[in-house]
Amino acid sequence: MPMPAALDVSTLLAVLAATIVATKLFGDVAQRVGQPAVLGELLAGVALGAIGAFRPHEAALQPFAQIGIVVLLFQIGLHTDVRSLRRVGAEAAVVAAAGVIIPFLGGYVVAHALGLADVPALVCGAALTATSIGISARVLGDLMRLHTEDGQVVLGAAVLDDIIGLVILSVVFSVAAGGNVSPAGVVRMTGIAIGFVLVALLMGAIAMPTLIRFVERMRGTGVLGLLSLAFAFGMAWLAVRTGSALIIGALAAGLILHPMPQRNEIESSVTAIGHFFVPIFFASVGAALDLHALASPGALTLGGALIVVGIAGKVLAGFAPWWYDGNKLLVGVAMVPRGEVGLVFAQMGLGAGVLGQGEFGALMLMIVVTTFLPPPILARIVRARSGTGEMASEPGIDDLVAGTHHRGVRKTAVRTRHPDK
Amino acid sequence: MPMPAALDVSTLLAVLAATIVATKLFGDVAQRVGQPAVLGELLAGVALGAIGAFRPHEAALQPFAQIGIVVLLFQIGLHTDVRSLRRVGAEAAVVAAAGVIIPFLGGYVVAHALGLADVPALVCGAALTATSIGISARVLGDLMRLHTEDGQVVLGAAVLDDIIGLVILSVVFSVAAGGNVSPAGVVRMTGIAIGFVLVALLMGAIAMPTLIRFVERMRGTGVLGLLSLAFAFGMAWLAVRTGSALIIGALAAGLILHPMPQRNEIESSVTAIGHFFVPIFFASVGAALDLHALASPGALTLGGALIVVGIAGKVLAGFAPWWYDGNKLLVGVAMVPRGEVGLVFAQMGLGAGVLGQGEFGALMLMIVVTTFLPPPILARIVRARSGTGEMASEPGIDDLVAGTHHRGVRKTAVRTRHPDK
Repeated sequence: MPMPAALDVSTLLAVLAATIVATKLFGDVAQRVGQPAVLGELLAGVALGAIGAFRPHEAALQPFAQIGIVVLLFQIGLHTDVRSLRRVGAEAAVVAAAGVIIPFLGGYVVAHALGLADVPALVCGAALTATSIGISARVLGDLMRLHTEDGQVVLGAAVLDDIIGLVILSVVFSVAAGGNVSPAGVVRMTGIAIGFVLVALLMGAIAMPTLIRFVERMRGTGVLGLLSLAFAFGMAWLAVRTGSALIIGALAAGLILHPMPQRNEIESSVTAIGHFFVPIFFASVGAALDLHALASPGALTLGGALIVVGIAGKVLAGFAPWWYDGNKLLVGVAMVPRGEVGLVFAQMGLGAGVLGQGEFGALMLMIVVTTFLPPPILARIVRARSGTGEMASEPGIDDLVAGTHHRGVRKTAVRTRHPDK
Repeated sequence: MPMPAALDVSTLLAVLAATIVATKLFGDVAQRVGQPAVLGELLAGVALGAIGAFRPHEAALQPFAQIGIVVLLFQIGLHTDVRSLRRVGAEAAVVAAAGVIIPFLGGYVVAHALGLADVPALVCGAALTATSIGISARVLGDLMRLHTEDGQVVLGAAVLDDIIGLVILSVVFSVAAGGNVSPAGVVRMTGIAIGFVLVALLMGAIAMPTLIRFVERMRGTGVLGLLSLAFAFGMAWLAVRTGSALIIGALAAGLILHPMPQRNEIESSVTAIGHFFVPIFFASVGAALDLHALASPGALTLGGALIVVGIAGKVLAGFAPWWYDGNKLLVGVAMVPRGEVGLVFAQMGLGAGVLGQGEFGALMLMIVVTTFLPPPILARIVRARSGTGEMASEPGIDDLVAGTHHRGVRKTAVRTRHPDK
């Protein structure tokens, strides 16, 4: 693939316009056939990527997609009560740990058995550990399940997975580069990521009320919402600077603002901005799935094996907290999507020369299947448990995360109607 | 100035966060001292530019600033009734024509008299013809004067100025490049720009109601607002492709949607997105004002002369429609800001090697003064005519363009209070 020339602004506007139209159309169709809107947005990205309209590695588009994931994680944080995460902390920790260990070992063993050398097999294992918190949370939001106990376990485990994944990523690529990785270094990296969130929460609880009172005295419309967004951007930057990740900072910013009485005002202006940026992120994930990479010999066998390990590993992880009396299958399936996090691993492996086209194609296949399979399965699990009537039980909350209020309410009435296009 | 390296995403987030915070703080201070918020946002840009935090030519920031001007012009179009523009069409046309001819000839003569060669003197004259529609409209919006007859004359004249300025820009640079410019070519370019708006309005009136009915049947939150924004982006792209300018397309998109019954819904979601992007545009205009360029010898003399011509030319243009019984001084002063349009001329002149540092510095000085002087003067003119009590006479309309509802209402009560910071 040749490196595309930088987009001029008018072409960028055309790409963004096409992305908005395609994600809304595909999202609408997905909902009409009973699927979460995010599935449609991902498929819109695949379609835009296939016709070359959306090039996910285009420098001009990257910031928009990245702001999308930052705004999404900020919204998720805004909706998340830290106490409810703490209540399911043990379950989430066990799910996260099992969801890293089983796929990592399984992936390594399977890849090794299929003839891969040590380091590429390690990268395959590492790519299997990721969970796409964005996709998981958005699907649960679309299905009005993010604020159930199950949803909180998934959210907590996915956050921990991101932290662990970050550490594994650094370690594996240190090994690949012939570097020396000490156990102390691993502990330090893990500590930084977890410590960042804890310190941020503590500082936020102390300073935020005063800060918000100051902001509320400022004039102009939308000041509080905009400055909250600036806070999320600043925290995302700070997280990267302290060795953690963008999304950890954005999530922490949301968690800090959650207890504030001004939360609703903040949410409504952030949601409007999220409507613009978040679908660009999902489209970019879809567009990054390069189907040509599957054509390499051996890709299908390795890919098939990694899919089995990838799905089984995460579903088993859902059952790891044996004492938990929620919906373990729902938790396990919700942890399956690899999405953008898996893509980062695969692309870094390819870029570092550790993976060949065949292994890269196999990982792509695993990412495609694990990203696109869970949404419809989760929809079935939710429907089997509750019936369609209960789908709209959490209006106003998930609505803000996923923009699904209208859908939930209108779903039963419109489902049997023939799609208009 | 060395070409800066591309920003990584986390640095971009930090720059955007700093821009949001600075524009809101400076905007707040500007309002507390009785000035339009946009003046504060421009000064925030100057401050950010001076400390190197905001580099307006940074490739990663350009799209955000450009989307800001596109969203702003789209909002202005949404608020503009084509019939009210047509009602003041003769006045606007005369103001525009006089506002191009007087500064162009005056600038050329003055620059030539001060020793510049023909082509640089032509570029100086051309740079004086521009009107920053963004700044003019925003200031009038901040002052609740956009929807008066005077405001409509300024808006119409500024749009025509942009079209004429575009043509002059092309002609002057064809001349500078030694090209051959036929009168037919000039007529063709003017025709394309004006024709684009007329054809767009006609097509829009025919197709838009059906299109909106289709969109309204789609599911998901914010679909109508987002797709309207996509429409504005698409029109901006189309305008560039047909040889016109981004802002002409965005304005046309707004004018087309103005008569639709769904306008309020569209406006409220576009406004929320505008709160994010528009101040980035104003900050980038402020940050582009490189004060070092003023240090060149001769810059101050030439700059001073251009300032006199630039201000006198536009103010005189306000008095050109002799039969008009509105506030001619208000119209003339509102046409003075050169802002980003003048910057484009100056930078193209420098880039093409037509202007030296001295002439570039002189144009910079002219742009600084003509951009920063009118807002406080307009505020005085408006207050002298109406008294402060009437400032809040148009809530809900200008509020959406400029976000000033709270300010207007709270202005009299808080003006005497000492600023908190």
